Amino acid sequence: MKRMVNSFDPSKGSTDLTPDEAALLARRQRVLGSLAPVFYEHPVHIVRGEGAHLFAADGTDYLDCYNNVAVVGHANPHVREAVADQLTRQDTHTRYLQDEVIDYAERLLATFPDRLDHVAFTNSGSESNDLALRMARTFTGHRGVVVTGNAYHGITSLVSSISPSFGTGLPLAPFLVAVPIDDVLKKPDGTFDDPAAASAARAELVVRFEAAFAKLHDAGYGVSAVLLDQIFSSDGVLPGATGWVADVADAVHKAGGLLIADEVQSGFARTGERFWGFRRHMADADIVTMGKPMGNGIPTGAVVYKHDIGDTFAACTRYFNTFGGNPVSMRAAGAVLDEIEARELQRNALETGDYIAVEITRLLADAPRFGGIRHAGLFIGIDILDGDDSRTPDPDAAARIIAALRDRHVLISGSAADGSSLKLRPPLVFSRADADRLLTELAAITPLFE
Amino acid sequence: MKRMVNSFDPSKGSTDLTPDEAALLARRQRVLGSLAPVFYEHPVHIVRGEGAHLFAADGTDYLDCYNNVAVVGHANPHVREAVADQLTRQDTHTRYLQDEVIDYAERLLATFPDRLDHVAFTNSGSESNDLALRMARTFTGHRGVVVTGNAYHGITSLVSSISPSFGTGLPLAPFLVAVPIDDVLKKPDGTFDDPAAASAARAELVVRFEAAFAKLHDAGYGVSAVLLDQIFSSDGVLPGATGWVADVADAVHKAGGLLIADEVQSGFARTGERFWGFRRHMADADIVTMGKPMGNGIPTGAVVYKHDIGDTFAACTRYFNTFGGNPVSMRAAGAVLDEIEARELQRNALETGDYIAVEITRLLADAPRFGGIRHAGLFIGIDILDGDDSRTPDPDAAARIIAALRDRHVLISGSAADGSSLKLRPPLVFSRADADRLLTELAAITPLFE
Repeated sequence: MKRMVNSFDPSKGSTDLTPDEAALLARRQRVLGSLAPVFYEHPVHIVRGEGAHLFAADGTDYLDCYNNVAVVGHANPHVREAVADQLTRQDTHTRYLQDEVIDYAERLLATFPDRLDHVAFTNSGSESNDLALRMARTFTGHRGVVVTGNAYHGITSLVSSISPSFGTGLPLAPFLVAVPIDDVLKKPDGTFDDPAAASAARAELVVRFEAAFAKLHDAGYGVSAVLLDQIFSSDGVLPGATGWVADVADAVHKAGGLLIADEVQSGFARTGERFWGFRRHMADADIVTMGKPMGNGIPTGAVVYKHDIGDTFAACTRYFNTFGGNPVSMRAAGAVLDEIEARELQRNALETGDYIAVEITRLLADAPRFGGIRHAGLFIGIDILDGDDSRTPDPDAAARIIAALRDRHVLISGSAADGSSLKLRPPLVFSRADADRLLTELAAITPLFE
Repeated sequence: MKRMVNSFDPSKGSTDLTPDEAALLARRQRVLGSLAPVFYEHPVHIVRGEGAHLFAADGTDYLDCYNNVAVVGHANPHVREAVADQLTRQDTHTRYLQDEVIDYAERLLATFPDRLDHVAFTNSGSESNDLALRMARTFTGHRGVVVTGNAYHGITSLVSSISPSFGTGLPLAPFLVAVPIDDVLKKPDGTFDDPAAASAARAELVVRFEAAFAKLHDAGYGVSAVLLDQIFSSDGVLPGATGWVADVADAVHKAGGLLIADEVQSGFARTGERFWGFRRHMADADIVTMGKPMGNGIPTGAVVYKHDIGDTFAACTRYFNTFGGNPVSMRAAGAVLDEIEARELQRNALETGDYIAVEITRLLADAPRFGGIRHAGLFIGIDILDGDDSRTPDPDAAARIIAALRDRHVLISGSAADGSSLKLRPPLVFSRADADRLLTELAAITPLFE
């Protein structure tokens, strides 16, 4: 099986641990065992957070350039007040009439095109993708699913079986076709500013997806859905050739299937240009799934859908999710929307993301191991090469850079099937000062890019 | 498909709605659509809770005899303080070293036999059962699953496909065998105080499960797990013939499979006699799943397992659950354990449950529609008959009783495949005074039992 990028390996251990860290790791191992991965050869012991900063037990201030759950900032006071207030009221389920779930549902749907007019609530992105696929299969009557080459869509039995990023330790679903996209979209010029190049990339990708549909058709499965992370986080962060998802949506509709936009990573203003990633591509998504940033850490997720899809599903089965849409999660989610609006975090994502991309390009343009930077808003991927003229991806060099930044108190991680890309996706409250600190620390380790 | 027991039917509407309720239902329908069931022909609009009481928008105090999530009481101040305190600190995931998840994991595992020595955290009972089945299948190398006749185990694609209680609208899994148990265990004497009767019931049930294992073996699936709700909530609440689950555990082990104890409903002191339902049966469970009451409404769940099962799974794949084990959920869960211990809620479940069962029997013993009462602690099932000598179950009479109690401001619901049993499972803080109020209101509707 494939180990998590940038994970602590208990069989190797670490020579850097303090006695307290070693004791905590040993306790952790005794109760959580081998199923619970930890980041870094020298794991970080976190006790407190604020804004885009996480503080270790020894007081060290780590700059958080990685965590896309605490989107409005760690320990956000507005979220805390909303949650604490609701906990003075009540927190039962949606089988009673309640204001909180309706108020939030109306507010969430207002961020979507009119045709995406209904919502079901879940507790995680995994539950959302699982439900979306069940709905798509029931609505279309088909079973086949198409994803990207190194896709990750979650951890239920169904969604893990359509997530090639888990590696080969457990079999993937027989009704899955995974379409590689990184060879087309992971170009040094990830923006595809050249219209001809963008157009060629779009055409090439549609051909590949149409071939996948034909394969599933011939195998007797048909196509229920193309499920696409709208920033392609695990494929290496691939925001480019804007519009290709719209082309694939048109193609899958012709093949009798649906487009499910997985916005667990790309949603809630992260990509700067639009509130939702699929809107960057102007794609006609039929179902949209979300999770991670929705409640700033209070577990909650959602599936937004065209109502006829839900009506067909509801005619066949019930769906009641005990915690889904509970008032505390809804109040937390509402507070997240408040903060995104009041603090103009979508604009911040756009401007700070662009600033970081420009400055990193300026800093590393001539460094032989710098393979290019791609970003949309505050979702950033950087390719690391072996430094030769061959431009070969170098996962080991990427791992060294991630570890060196950790030792300089900057938290990032990796991406791509081979782990050769750096992945940065900080809380959206990431300020210009935070960005400058990131750039300063990157400048201090430029020898690792030589 | 089967509608939820005791659900509002939008196609029929309700003549009892106030203008405010009608407006809220209309808004709800517009955004949540047909996928979101609501209780009662006249839904209840809840705005506040305290202890075992839920308060409607018009101020009415409803006695909550149904909700097993807010186990330490609605709007519990100790849970609120723990959550609010943690939200001043931080709420990131378990890939950093954190105290909260380790502290809680140690405390949770201390409630289990030594052999159940590891835990993985999820966000719901559905995610827990889904993960447990993935682990069982990977560990055993088999695919087959055995459940009870009207089992409900959750809403992911996998666990809904092994939940016969959803009805026939979507196909069940081909690798499933559902074993009826209610004809054996739903006796008027649900306690099986007669040792000979208990022994005969145990023997009969083991024969049935062994036949299921043989069927899965012959079909080429083998048996990965028997998955059993430890109070058999959706089968009609069946606590009797204590020990039969242990017999089935021994049998499934011989067949190469595991016993998964689903404690989503029966766990956390609910059944009074033991903290976990499977311990009432002295069963050698290999994996134990939990959810609903764990965080008193803050979404959280867990899978407790013998470590070799997790090690095998971890050798094949990763499992990282973004929200699973997050510090806020862990602090909420810790506060729930605090309250169960400090307020002796297990003892209260036992004593108050026994009191209610004795008094209801006294009240209804001679009523022709009273078919018997079964309970373990504060999980209570009452069978409703048509009142003739035939002792035929009567779902319509059960529905009338549920609605009449709602109109007298007492919340309960139904159970069993045909909906002919009443289901009561109040918050564990349910007091003697609460019980007396329930009994008074039941006494007021005894004509419905005639």
